Amino acid sequence: MSFFSFELDPALAADPVFDLHKHGKMAITSTVPLSSRDDLSLAYTPGVARVCEAIAESPDLVHDYTWTGNAVAVVTDGSAVLGLGNIGPKAAMPVMEGKAVLFKQFGGVDAVPICLDTQNVDELVAMVKALAPSFGGINLEDISAPRCFEIERRLDAALDIPVFHDDQHGTAVVVLAALRNAVSLLGRRFGDLRIVISGAGAAGVAIAKVLIAAGVNGANMIVCDSKGILHAERRDLNPTKVELAAVTNFSGRIGGIHEALIGADVLIGVSGGTIGETALAGMAPGAIIFGLANPTPEVLPQIAHRYAAIVATGRSDFPNQINNVLAFPGIFRGALDARATTVTEGMKVAAAEAIAEVVCDELRPEAIVPSPLDPRVAPAVAAAVSAAAVRDGVARRTAPAPADLAVSRLA
Amino acid sequence: MSFFSFELDPALAADPVFDLHKHGKMAITSTVPLSSRDDLSLAYTPGVARVCEAIAESPDLVHDYTWTGNAVAVVTDGSAVLGLGNIGPKAAMPVMEGKAVLFKQFGGVDAVPICLDTQNVDELVAMVKALAPSFGGINLEDISAPRCFEIERRLDAALDIPVFHDDQHGTAVVVLAALRNAVSLLGRRFGDLRIVISGAGAAGVAIAKVLIAAGVNGANMIVCDSKGILHAERRDLNPTKVELAAVTNFSGRIGGIHEALIGADVLIGVSGGTIGETALAGMAPGAIIFGLANPTPEVLPQIAHRYAAIVATGRSDFPNQINNVLAFPGIFRGALDARATTVTEGMKVAAAEAIAEVVCDELRPEAIVPSPLDPRVAPAVAAAVSAAAVRDGVARRTAPAPADLAVSRLA
Repeated sequence: MSFFSFELDPALAADPVFDLHKHGKMAITSTVPLSSRDDLSLAYTPGVARVCEAIAESPDLVHDYTWTGNAVAVVTDGSAVLGLGNIGPKAAMPVMEGKAVLFKQFGGVDAVPICLDTQNVDELVAMVKALAPSFGGINLEDISAPRCFEIERRLDAALDIPVFHDDQHGTAVVVLAALRNAVSLLGRRFGDLRIVISGAGAAGVAIAKVLIAAGVNGANMIVCDSKGILHAERRDLNPTKVELAAVTNFSGRIGGIHEALIGADVLIGVSGGTIGETALAGMAPGAIIFGLANPTPEVLPQIAHRYAAIVATGRSDFPNQINNVLAFPGIFRGALDARATTVTEGMKVAAAEAIAEVVCDELRPEAIVPSPLDPRVAPAVAAAVSAAAVRDGVARRTAPAPADLAVSRLA
Repeated sequence: MSFFSFELDPALAADPVFDLHKHGKMAITSTVPLSSRDDLSLAYTPGVARVCEAIAESPDLVHDYTWTGNAVAVVTDGSAVLGLGNIGPKAAMPVMEGKAVLFKQFGGVDAVPICLDTQNVDELVAMVKALAPSFGGINLEDISAPRCFEIERRLDAALDIPVFHDDQHGTAVVVLAALRNAVSLLGRRFGDLRIVISGAGAAGVAIAKVLIAAGVNGANMIVCDSKGILHAERRDLNPTKVELAAVTNFSGRIGGIHEALIGADVLIGVSGGTIGETALAGMAPGAIIFGLANPTPEVLPQIAHRYAAIVATGRSDFPNQINNVLAFPGIFRGALDARATTVTEGMKVAAAEAIAEVVCDELRPEAIVPSPLDPRVAPAVAAAVSAAAVRDGVARRTAPAPADLAVSRLA
């Protein structure tokens, strides 16, 4: 009998991705010696009881004397995994585990994949609250909209550790970084941009909010969902979209993506559909087009270049890859270093600026963001986020983590 | 400002146990390369999506193609931590982390400490059920009795992965191993023993059950709680104790520990109190005394030896340390290797026999159990448990894990 009791289709078994994933992608290691009786009596009983008593007395010591201060839960309910949809908690695990190893590799963060077998909002909130004492931060992942907005809002209000839904804010931060550099290359002003966001799910909503926080004029911004332009007269909007309609599209434009794009300077696609050339033809000259759906962008680069001066996608095989890995490892590293109680809009904007600055000396239309593998990114983001946490009054630790720790964790 | 924002009492800071615990005792490591774009596209997007799709199709593949198959959650609510009592989830974390590193060191198991911020039985059951897709097994830890019995029973019934409350069964397995060897040294027969268990909490109940499963005659066994001997006429017993009263003490003895010990061959103390010499004086000649409370045994060895031929405690500074680390790493290693759906009484008895056999050639009254550091123990326990799982029909994988895997995990 084979080791694998549940046989894989032979066609799949030949795929190198299954070979790589055999037994998973991560492991636990001990960071203390465990080879003598004395070792055991310090790391476990009876010595450990003295650490427990100190934490019972001063609960915040848990972040100093356990791994909790460097540990982040990567939590999903499997309801919106990549482009695969609602595939449930088990099938979501390879993505969460991948996220966890990227957290370690780029941010020195110990991340634990937690795939929960419920999709009830109240239950998810209760469970993550109950898990919180074991972690220094919560990264929500691949939870469908609009549930994700309520879950994040309630958890952030309830918990004194950072709660961050990466599909929203990680994407938004990297989009903001890319847009800053694109605008700077084209000699445009951020406040003048007429931006269209195609898609009002997790990413679209967060992108709109962070762009407004960063100085884009919401009055000139247009957000579209699958039914067309968001405007104040629409009666089919969920509360998040109502909120968004109130701070965008002040001219009350109506219609679909075609109408939205007339005169637009920037198109940010986070919808997954295809946007046709007739719509693109209406954009202003020297436009910027980010088609971020994966694996098929809303606009393929060869087409986008007919209408735009700068083009980005989510794909690694085209220039200008908008990849969340540029953001989340450094954001959590910085938030944990500052022992931040939340992630503010200021911390997100600071992260975007740090990402943008890494490549500002080597800026070209096909290099507006650093490579996902650029080792300068995470430390720069971490430092900027940590400083912003102090500035925004949400840091519980105002001195930087000691160099030896930061170096060893980012090594 | 110091790195530690929450200053530790200087007297504690001088204690080496705090130095060892700084930043915790464990870390996550990646087991796959992550240094090129190709690496990222296999371990993360887009490659990972193919693994997700395969698991969505055949959910059990999650144990083969993620770390789940080797990952165990060490779950507590902080309600009964060591001898410290109900100190809550944060203060419990150093113990759970210690347990996790012992799991890795001795069993090659990737264990994740999960300290939950609720002590409501229904909520705990719901939460662990929801966590289950992320793990190959659940080790319950330091949950107070009698809540622990219901929680374990409900979870074991609901889940298709092993659920094991170590304070019950880990202790019971090592007690059974020690008793086997003690009995063998003294030339006694297991079925003839008159055993008294002082303590009817998590450990006491499990010890009684496993001893009966291993051939001890329950009719001659007496269990005492803080109010005295359990018997069928008592009206102050919780359901677990009612069950125990029904299968023990057939002669209907009443009274306290003094009456219980008259003519007894074996005393197993798991109560935490002190048992006086006048009570011990009533035991049969050539008795066996295990005083397992930590740090102060119910009977100190120097006193116990006045009445007993063989003495054991829970302490590392006396001979014959009854330490759960002899059991849980190998039990979970074996259960995971067999992909067992539960831990049967047969698997527990097999574990105890394997522990006992490790030292059977070198048996002495002061060496009835192996040292907690003996490297022969966990592999022997794992093999025995895995085989018992197959025998008991609860294994979903009947071939042993390949040698290279077992070796690397137990290295």
